[in-house]
Amino acid sequence: MKALAEIQVIPIGVGTSVRGQVRRAHQIIRDSGLKVQLHAYGTNVEGDLDTILETVGRIHTLLHAEGVPRLSTAVKIGTRTDKDSTLEDKVLGIAPETQG
Amino acid sequence: MKALAEIQVIPIGVGTSVRGQVRRAHQIIRDSGLKVQLHAYGTNVEGDLDTILETVGRIHTLLHAEGVPRLSTAVKIGTRTDKDSTLEDKVLGIAPETQG
Amino acid sequence: MKALAEIQVIPIGVGTSVRGQVRRAHQIIRDSGLKVQLHAYGTNVEGDLDTILETVGRIHTLLHAEGVPRLSTAVKIGTRTDKDSTLEDKVLGIAPETQG
Amino acid sequence: MKALAEIQVIPIGVGTSVRGQVRRAHQIIRDSGLKVQLHAYGTNVEGDLDTILETVGRIHTLLHAEGVPRLSTAVKIGTRTDKDSTLEDKVLGIAPETQG
Repeated sequence: MKALAEIQVIPIGVGTSVRGQVRRAHQIIRDSGLKVQLHAYGTNVEGDLDTILETVGRIHTLLHAEGVPRLSTAVKIGTRTDKDSTLEDKVLGIAPETQG
Repeated sequence: MKALAEIQVIPIGVGTSVRGQVRRAHQIIRDSGLKVQLHAYGTNVEGDLDTILETVGRIHTLLHAEGVPRLSTAVKIGTRTDKDSTLEDKVLGIAPETQG
Repeated sequence: MKALAEIQVIPIGVGTSVRGQVRRAHQIIRDSGLKVQLHAYGTNVEGDLDTILETVGRIHTLLHAEGVPRLSTAVKIGTRTDKDSTLEDKVLGIAPETQG
Repeated sequence: MKALAEIQVIPIGVGTSVRGQVRRAHQIIRDSGLKVQLHAYGTNVEGDLDTILETVGRIHTLLHAEGVPRLSTAVKIGTRTDKDSTLEDKVLGIAPETQG
């Protein structure tokens, strides 16, 4: 099933700056083959729901294997059957003047 | 990997009252075999991360099959490698006087 | 305006265990006079929306003053004009067998 | 206090398409004077925490006054005392190649 989602990863126990671990999570998302759009509060993705969910699992597996002791992830998932939806459409529908 | 999570499902396009669809999502979560705790803003679960993620996917598949045109789901996932954690421990750690 | 909400506070830069700071945030919420229900993924509250929002601000002000270098807070807010809603009603509507 | 935040508004009971109401919420955020960045899962803002919280309250007040029967809003708030942070810095820190 096609889905849009937002994935935000908060590493805990690695200090006040979490930039390196968040960059790594973003890299894992990009490696998934999903369409991605990074923003200041997470990475938006577009693609198959199962692939999105597997990617979330992979972030936890890999980041823990690489030494992060604790992770808090927030995922928002949107699916609909009435029409196809894309990340770009959502932005353009809200602010037509925006260059996505 | 063991995880704690919160799953909140918001059905869209079924009217102002979404109780029946949210009840159905909660039932799917209970059928997963995960340990569950319902509260006013979602269902907290404890168990295997892959099972949690599969359950989220199943909610979308089943609710759409049952006629819900649009779903917005918010999932929070917590994992840690430094110690085992349970839903009950988290509550008792914050408010020892609480009967979880 | 009457609202229901969930407040989850994630302290960053205080180590892997964040229990003390989360307990403090929960205490600030209880001191607000709002009706509260603690669970493993946050504190649900019921009351005036302005009071809820002020309480969120107070958590950030006080925890920083008490030494927490970084905070990531997630708040979910629900309001409706078609009927009155309570934390207890939401739970009972989903699982009538539950003792809230 | 300076804060970064993400505001996502989900109108309920207005049908499957919520575009008009989400556009209105985004407009209210822009009218706040906060620095804003729209994306597919919400509007990121940068500015004074009290202004951010007041803006969330105003969205609920105005959208209900304009006929939306139910609103579910998700707000993520980030504050830190160790350094100044901007929406643009967060994105550049994660993906230096990105044109924010």
